[in-house]
Amino acid sequence: MKTLTKLSAAMLTSATLAASTLLIACGSDSDSSSDAPAVSQSGQVKNLILMIGDGMGAQQVGLLEEYARRSPANAAQVGQVTGLQRLAEGGALGLSMTAPMGANAGLVVDSACSATQLATGQGSISEAVGLDDQGNKVETILEKAQKMGKATGLITDTRLTHATPAGFASHRPHRSMENEIAEDLLDAGVDVLLGGGSRHWAPKVDDFDALAAELNAPTHVIKKSKRSADDERNLFAEAKNAGYALAFDREQMNAVTSGKLLGLFDDSAMNDGIEYTQCKKAGSADAGSKCADEPSLKEMTKKALDILSQDPDGFFLMVEGGQIDWAGHINDTGWLLHEMLKFDEAVQAVYEWAAERDDTLVVVTADHETGGFGMAYHKHDIPEAKTLPGDGMVNGDGSARDYQPQYNFGALATLDKIYAQERSFYDILSAVNGDWDFSNTQATDWVAAVNASLHQDFHIDAESGERIAARYEVPAEDVHPEHKYLSATNIPKFNDFSDFYVYADEDTGALIAREIAPKQSVTWGNGTHTAAPVPVYAFGPEAITKQFSTMQHHTDVGQKMIKALIGE
Amino acid sequence: MKTLTKLSAAMLTSATLAASTLLIACGSDSDSSSDAPAVSQSGQVKNLILMIGDGMGAQQVGLLEEYARRSPANAAQVGQVTGLQRLAEGGALGLSMTAPMGANAGLVVDSACSATQLATGQGSISEAVGLDDQGNKVETILEKAQKMGKATGLITDTRLTHATPAGFASHRPHRSMENEIAEDLLDAGVDVLLGGGSRHWAPKVDDFDALAAELNAPTHVIKKSKRSADDERNLFAEAKNAGYALAFDREQMNAVTSGKLLGLFDDSAMNDGIEYTQCKKAGSADAGSKCADEPSLKEMTKKALDILSQDPDGFFLMVEGGQIDWAGHINDTGWLLHEMLKFDEAVQAVYEWAAERDDTLVVVTADHETGGFGMAYHKHDIPEAKTLPGDGMVNGDGSARDYQPQYNFGALATLDKIYAQERSFYDILSAVNGDWDFSNTQATDWVAAVNASLHQDFHIDAESGERIAARYEVPAEDVHPEHKYLSATNIPKFNDFSDFYVYADEDTGALIAREIAPKQSVTWGNGTHTAAPVPVYAFGPEAITKQFSTMQHHTDVGQKMIKALIGE
Repeated sequence: MKTLTKLSAAMLTSATLAASTLLIACGSDSDSSSDAPAVSQSGQVKNLILMIGDGMGAQQVGLLEEYARRSPANAAQVGQVTGLQRLAEGGALGLSMTAPMGANAGLVVDSACSATQLATGQGSISEAVGLDDQGNKVETILEKAQKMGKATGLITDTRLTHATPAGFASHRPHRSMENEIAEDLLDAGVDVLLGGGSRHWAPKVDDFDALAAELNAPTHVIKKSKRSADDERNLFAEAKNAGYALAFDREQMNAVTSGKLLGLFDDSAMNDGIEYTQCKKAGSADAGSKCADEPSLKEMTKKALDILSQDPDGFFLMVEGGQIDWAGHINDTGWLLHEMLKFDEAVQAVYEWAAERDDTLVVVTADHETGGFGMAYHKHDIPEAKTLPGDGMVNGDGSARDYQPQYNFGALATLDKIYAQERSFYDILSAVNGDWDFSNTQATDWVAAVNASLHQDFHIDAESGERIAARYEVPAEDVHPEHKYLSATNIPKFNDFSDFYVYADEDTGALIAREIAPKQSVTWGNGTHTAAPVPVYAFGPEAITKQFSTMQHHTDVGQKMIKALIGE
Repeated sequence: MKTLTKLSAAMLTSATLAASTLLIACGSDSDSSSDAPAVSQSGQVKNLILMIGDGMGAQQVGLLEEYARRSPANAAQVGQVTGLQRLAEGGALGLSMTAPMGANAGLVVDSACSATQLATGQGSISEAVGLDDQGNKVETILEKAQKMGKATGLITDTRLTHATPAGFASHRPHRSMENEIAEDLLDAGVDVLLGGGSRHWAPKVDDFDALAAELNAPTHVIKKSKRSADDERNLFAEAKNAGYALAFDREQMNAVTSGKLLGLFDDSAMNDGIEYTQCKKAGSADAGSKCADEPSLKEMTKKALDILSQDPDGFFLMVEGGQIDWAGHINDTGWLLHEMLKFDEAVQAVYEWAAERDDTLVVVTADHETGGFGMAYHKHDIPEAKTLPGDGMVNGDGSARDYQPQYNFGALATLDKIYAQERSFYDILSAVNGDWDFSNTQATDWVAAVNASLHQDFHIDAESGERIAARYEVPAEDVHPEHKYLSATNIPKFNDFSDFYVYADEDTGALIAREIAPKQSVTWGNGTHTAAPVPVYAFGPEAITKQFSTMQHHTDVGQKMIKALIGE
């Protein structure tokens, strides 16, 4: 599966690569692609599977682990041991800092820069993909793996053109260039591409139903295009010409058992975690429904492993749980839990695939933490005093003393109530206004939508509805007319830390979080990302995995992965 | 140094210990106390040093590491490598969950319960020390170490009777019983006790100056008592009778080179991190000043190592950096950074002591995270566009594209500005009102006190002052008349997540944090603790340390430590 794409050829002539590197790289390409033994000698492992929980800080993992280990009802039936925990027990766990490094360094990272730093082991710049700290195109671990003849794959439950997958096979100055990123992914010749976001691949046509029929795709998958009307490229046709099988639903994906595969299963994001849980619970699904059509993150991951592992040279695969981040941005704890469960299912599948092998390194990490999430104690509903039998329950004078903590430290049953959430905050927003125009909503609409979606113990009253409906007129000097979000003149009303809610109407959901916070024992710091060091799970040969059991930076993680797989 | 104290004798008859354990324990006590070889065989290491950064989550460590590695000015001269990082590089790093376990489990932990769970490896209850989940007294690792003939020590920069040290050598149903806890620490015969909090040890006298003179103590150390007037115990006299040398300043501490040592260096907390930094910068200090008199956390730690390591049976030492937590509760990032630096100095000293040994396990962790701290990106002061030289800085049509992130991801220089803070928020509160009565303060007072203390780029204006001065009348139904804090009827006005600010006037500082948040690129989620898994650094024999490189719970950490030191 060795290909020298147009893009990588362009890169090889870029000023960033030293002449010697050029010679080696070109030499490698002109060699026989079946030169597997030499290839294998240079790296320490044949295969590398990198899984990125977007926005998955230590505290998000903590929520998953608390639910898995201690939820009284455990309706998700995850048992006691998560996939993440199996990796940690069989491998190593460390922490990694994620901030932008190099000449244009910063304190907090976005997903594009973070993916790039992981993919290249070099400092990068904010909001760009595949560029170094000066804006130069720089080779990624995926591209290095291709040059060694390895198969490659990228998977996400958001859009394939979103920042995280893009950082591994595209080189663009801004993550918002998703149409160009789609072209790049195709030009790069990534063998397996599975995810959502067909809107950046589909040509702009008048009749999407006709296009869907032509592609044999469900109409809910091919229904819009973000490409320009005068676009000269038809990426579906190009993909077919380049040897890709196209898949638009689970059945089509499962029919592909080898070769190149481009699977696009939604026009934007795939099923969120709550929808996915409900699909699983329902068991069977109506034909043509999203439940029936969309493969899960786990299913996409297993399919990619089936295909990529056929390459005798080995493979590089990146799997993203991308909506963990989205749940964090909107401060939605219920959605967050279901995203963690969905991601962990895929982790479990990777663990099972890799457990008996000695030629594969699995790394699971996040690109950053999102939202400053934390379960916290508070003064709401302080529990009643309780008599305990222990011999230590005595005052200084020897009299008996009841157990009565001064604060509410949270009950385990709260985990089940969080799990019981039936709609994401995104869907609650949509229920109130399908266009997410909240400039003039009624408190009663919010009360109805929230209470129809959350566990009854989290229901809100009219006063809460008023605060969620509250709006703020942005002063003229703070309006940025050209900005995607900061051009808004009327935004949800945050009181504290309002500068850290930057997504205008989308942030409205985070006001719901404030109303239910003490009932959930949850607080959030912001609607963006934090610089909190994130967990790094490493599973595979011990000599490699133990290198990750430290406080490192994501450029270090990138370098360690490149060394393990590529040998540089 | 084997002693069977009254308390441990009482414990041995408690219903929690099985008969067989009793026989073994009593047998151990009646054996010769010089039975060192048999003792050494049971554990895997001779010595264990546990260091607890109270409130030190992954994000707090991240702040320290960012400052140490990337602060442009690096006025603290920490160099590139922290003590924590030396431990991680030479050992292992993992994560640990901290919540209360067992029959009275919860989601979030306080310091007392957390210390107890670390000390015993068993589930405990909120706000109690040394009790299991049913309120029974339960043997701690310190008490187990004593039974093996090992020396023991407890060190903190807060009060010795505070929750964290108390959890290792006291058994009380509430952490607030600090007078009784002082008695317990003495009765337990802990060999080295160093910290603040003399007010719980000093008898209630009419003339504290006379008492200070009698004890040869500085008058700023012996100046008040929290003990009752009819207290029949004089703990200083008892300590002397029990063979303790008493020390009330650095010189007195340094004069003690062996034997039992009780050092109390402040009536409550010792120097905070900012004060300590200023003492170090000043170089020399006036005789009788806190700078001259107070040993640092590092100095106390080194002294304890000097004394305890003389025991041929080995030792157990717990060192707490206790004010990290206090900085977190009041949402003070500048104070937090200086506390992390102070704690890391002590970690560095422990690293240097342990680096060349193969008989010592060092574990550094937190009891919980405090405040939901995070550096985050925001919409305030978005940087100007900038031209970069790289070949990737082009639009889809090939035209040049400037580097212009859509948000403010924070500048590294912010780290230096945070470091430049000259007073903790506690001291700012005191500057506004010495009695911390803020029921009727003026905005101008807050502006003056804040701007006199923070870097000029963090200065606040009159509007900010108004918001900090703003108050809230607690509705009658929410007033808890018997509660230490929730009895307040007039409290600082938090808007979002107000249920998570539970300390009445003390929380006022957290309103300052809201005013400077975008300038510091910092948000906080609450004024309490979060359940975020915390880092665990383990340094020593690799077969032991690698056990900590996983996602564990603090009861697991406790059990692993007990197994390593005691052999159970």
